[in-house]
Amino acid sequence: MKVVIVGSGNVATHLSLAIASLEGIEICQVYSPTEAHAEILAERLNCDFVTDPTQIRKEADVYLFALKDQALETVIRAVPANNGLWLHTSGSMPMQVFAGYTERYGVLYPLQTFSKSREISFRGIPLFIECHRKEDKNCLEDLALRLSGKVCELSSEKRRSLHLAAVFACNFTNHIYALAEEILAKEGLSRDYLFPLIDETAEKVHELPAREAQTGPAIRYDENIINKHLGMLADDPDVQTLYRLLSQSIHKKV
Amino acid sequence: MKVVIVGSGNVATHLSLAIASLEGIEICQVYSPTEAHAEILAERLNCDFVTDPTQIRKEADVYLFALKDQALETVIRAVPANNGLWLHTSGSMPMQVFAGYTERYGVLYPLQTFSKSREISFRGIPLFIECHRKEDKNCLEDLALRLSGKVCELSSEKRRSLHLAAVFACNFTNHIYALAEEILAKEGLSRDYLFPLIDETAEKVHELPAREAQTGPAIRYDENIINKHLGMLADDPDVQTLYRLLSQSIHKKV
Repeated sequence: MKVVIVGSGNVATHLSLAIASLEGIEICQVYSPTEAHAEILAERLNCDFVTDPTQIRKEADVYLFALKDQALETVIRAVPANNGLWLHTSGSMPMQVFAGYTERYGVLYPLQTFSKSREISFRGIPLFIECHRKEDKNCLEDLALRLSGKVCELSSEKRRSLHLAAVFACNFTNHIYALAEEILAKEGLSRDYLFPLIDETAEKVHELPAREAQTGPAIRYDENIINKHLGMLADDPDVQTLYRLLSQSIHKKV
Repeated sequence: MKVVIVGSGNVATHLSLAIASLEGIEICQVYSPTEAHAEILAERLNCDFVTDPTQIRKEADVYLFALKDQALETVIRAVPANNGLWLHTSGSMPMQVFAGYTERYGVLYPLQTFSKSREISFRGIPLFIECHRKEDKNCLEDLALRLSGKVCELSSEKRRSLHLAAVFACNFTNHIYALAEEILAKEGLSRDYLFPLIDETAEKVHELPAREAQTGPAIRYDENIINKHLGMLADDPDVQTLYRLLSQSIHKKV
């Protein structure tokens, strides 16, 4: 099976390396508008690359579009017509973004956060798939199951809710970590102190729904501590507002 | 060494059970204003209990006050004068809350989240200690080191910053998980899908500062996705506001 990788960012990199490790699959081309990025990924995958989407090969079996949402439709429009299965990897774009450009299309959405510098095994990553034509379902499912032990069919509409939940669980959580690190850095305290707390908070949620696992001053609405903390954050009104609204939200949702 | 446990909540329970497992230490009494709670903990520790702080024994070597901040000073005031070392476990109360009631006092603050239903090993929990008199430092440090491999001296002022950071890293993070679970529940999607993402986000921060680990639509300030998500949250204006402010905060702090 021949695969073309359309994109060279974090998702394209991690996913294409995982695919390249599968037997019987050949990645034959990488497309990226940024030559340096295209070249780096193509070298890792041992294939050629193009920076012009109209130069994308026509003979591949699968075209994997791992692009920023804003770029997706423009690039789809420029790819030469072909008979491969076109898949995107976005959480928030509907499958129908492909409609009118090809008849064979679907979605392969990995629910994970990818950073360039960090290796990650695909086996444990939930993959959410969606397919336009029945005839293509086997091919998509087979590819997904070879990558991950957790494959699930999901509509575009439910996928966008999943993506919204993921923004909370990952992006917002990580930012909350960043704010905590900032508070420690101001006092010259090591961010390492927080790791056992961060780990236990993440582990606890496997066992208990997060609402039941809640601890701290906000759930008791301990105004004494809350007001002291708001005072300590007076030099950063945005973070102060976040503290107040998060505390109120914890208290309301109990 | 004889220890009295003043309190019966999550911290009192987990800490007293860890102390009771140490050789040569006897927990001789539990105090709690709520008889049922006092009784349950006293039974687990195989000791007696009181619900009136004026009945707390005078012969112990260590008095461990693990109480809500609001209750701490009132209870301290009611405890009969004695010659033991008085310690509290609060992140946000200054050590000086003991001043005037005894000369032997200090702090033993475990940086962790405790839930009744979840066992936890104290060995990996960072313990932050502070001591009023030089002469008591060995006793406190010895006790702390027998409980945990990570013991650190810290002033009351730095401790309150650490506690503020912990509210972010744990309480706010957990609430963000709860909001993500709520979004999934509305669509009938399992919260289990999020675990690999939650785990990877927590693990990644061990390697990379959170600011560098940030991914998702907010860091790119992808207004198209952000606006779609805000629209999806229209039925919960509080959560919608949190989404907007967290996204702005991510974008600003880059």
